[in-house]
Amino acid sequence: MKKLINAPDHVLQESLRGFARAHADIVRMHDDPLFIARSARTPAGKVALISGGGSGHEPLHAGYVGRGMLDAACPGAVFTSPTPDQMTTAARAVDSGAGVLFIVKNYEGDVMNFEMAAEICDGGHASVLVDDDVAVRDSTWTSGRRGVAGTVIVEKIVGAAAEEGRALDDLRALAEKVVENTRSMGVALTSCTVPAAGEPTFTLGDDELEMGVGIHGEPGRERVPLRPADAIVSTMLEAIAGDLEAAKNDEVLLLVNGFGGTPAMELHLMFDAAARWLDDRDIEIARTLVGNYCTSLEMAGCSLTLTRLDEEMRQLWDAPVHTAALRW
Amino acid sequence: MKKLINAPDHVLQESLRGFARAHADIVRMHDDPLFIARSARTPAGKVALISGGGSGHEPLHAGYVGRGMLDAACPGAVFTSPTPDQMTTAARAVDSGAGVLFIVKNYEGDVMNFEMAAEICDGGHASVLVDDDVAVRDSTWTSGRRGVAGTVIVEKIVGAAAEEGRALDDLRALAEKVVENTRSMGVALTSCTVPAAGEPTFTLGDDELEMGVGIHGEPGRERVPLRPADAIVSTMLEAIAGDLEAAKNDEVLLLVNGFGGTPAMELHLMFDAAARWLDDRDIEIARTLVGNYCTSLEMAGCSLTLTRLDEEMRQLWDAPVHTAALRW
Repeated sequence: MKKLINAPDHVLQESLRGFARAHADIVRMHDDPLFIARSARTPAGKVALISGGGSGHEPLHAGYVGRGMLDAACPGAVFTSPTPDQMTTAARAVDSGAGVLFIVKNYEGDVMNFEMAAEICDGGHASVLVDDDVAVRDSTWTSGRRGVAGTVIVEKIVGAAAEEGRALDDLRALAEKVVENTRSMGVALTSCTVPAAGEPTFTLGDDELEMGVGIHGEPGRERVPLRPADAIVSTMLEAIAGDLEAAKNDEVLLLVNGFGGTPAMELHLMFDAAARWLDDRDIEIARTLVGNYCTSLEMAGCSLTLTRLDEEMRQLWDAPVHTAALRW
Repeated sequence: MKKLINAPDHVLQESLRGFARAHADIVRMHDDPLFIARSARTPAGKVALISGGGSGHEPLHAGYVGRGMLDAACPGAVFTSPTPDQMTTAARAVDSGAGVLFIVKNYEGDVMNFEMAAEICDGGHASVLVDDDVAVRDSTWTSGRRGVAGTVIVEKIVGAAAEEGRALDDLRALAEKVVENTRSMGVALTSCTVPAAGEPTFTLGDDELEMGVGIHGEPGRERVPLRPADAIVSTMLEAIAGDLEAAKNDEVLLLVNGFGGTPAMELHLMFDAAARWLDDRDIEIARTLVGNYCTSLEMAGCSLTLTRLDEEMRQLWDAPVHTAALRW
């Protein structure tokens, strides 16, 4: 295992400490239990947004803590759910009295621990489950569909609405609308290696792709021979747009998300291929995002996400955001 | 070779087309000869900043075109210098009459072609050479030191000064001051593969690091056995801070730059290690930047850069910037 680390057991602590120091103007790290919160207190009347999950998907979620997105993020060990006490302590720290919305990716551990946290929670709270991955139904750690890069879009849009002072019920309904209109699918060229495991999570032949891979390296739909970017994009967007029932003249947000080991040059080339596919079907690309937003350590590959936008979602997407990883 | 591409010959064109479309609010792509310029015209009285070089280092340079940084970027083929006609056409397109400053990384092809472009240039112009890499003197494509990630800092600081309407001579002098106060060094864990070559640029054993690697995979100081992040950081910062003659109470900007294949988790861990090293020597980290800013395709590894800041440089660093890759 070749990694820039000191010892597998210290990776998370050292990395988060570096993250918090590099972005001390935006976030603060809280130890024992571990969570990242905004350095500024939640304003009175603002619902607090909390997400979390296994680490290794950076900048998800700590990179999205800040004005216009999350109030706190609870990082578990690499590819391992955070614990309920992380969530309840974070909730107590950032709840201004207006309540807490938990944004949960659909993995059994995350779902169970966020449910336990919600039961313990004193204040008003609600949860929304993100399950945007169309690749497979049920997976290694998931009943139903997996939650992947679409989570970034949920956090951005609902985060903007929370800044406006909307009530908890409104925010949950909005989050559910974003989830209903968001679909993703990924492709892997290589595996990643979890530091504590020391070995690649899976193996792929030199000329093989894992089509529909999960963000922890879970199996996708099938292994296929290496093929041109246009053909890969076609397979992915047929699945995504088909499931979303995207139609002519629909306006969409197109996210091309790198898994951590794929250069920007290839991500922009995939964006170009996806844009041509959508152009051919008169589906309008109203908003774009290209880069490493929901990664799988150093995995090579990427995912595509489409969110069908309405006027409300577009305005909330455009609203100001100031986090370590997303900013406009 | 496993890449998300259609054909090696089309990578640059398709990728830049995707880049320009994804960021159409900021940049425009010009074909034949190829360059990326701001979508807005250079304001009258503002010196235009142009950089360029081989592709494969994204977001350098096209990702830094926009308000507060570059006016245009000239991308060559992967790891290959752009041609003088790209530079002169870009200069003609963005020169508002106040002149053009060329920011050139120290590689023989870049230096020669930018010199030829400067000779052909009608308007006022000046050049600055960036050679921040302390690893080696003279290298595969370089006489003297190589220009690497410090270029981002030069482009940001001088870009902010150009927005203020400063004259060409002032900007050249400022750029030289930033270069004089900037030092970098890199380390590679893996090679990268140039699409047109189809094979890794170099090979490294499973337990080897290339200490002092160049951003095209040029040899560094030595190959050393894999070691903990703290030890890697020590070697790099001893070389960098020693050459910079960084002293107690100096204020520095610390840039931890990923080469494309290293996850954010490891970059933040390297930042933490570097911060502890600087703390121990009472060198103050006044500003920070952590991420993929000057890459080598999908190479795993990173570079560290220190820039000694004075009040002028700090203010210009903090000034607003709005580009695809850097924004505050």
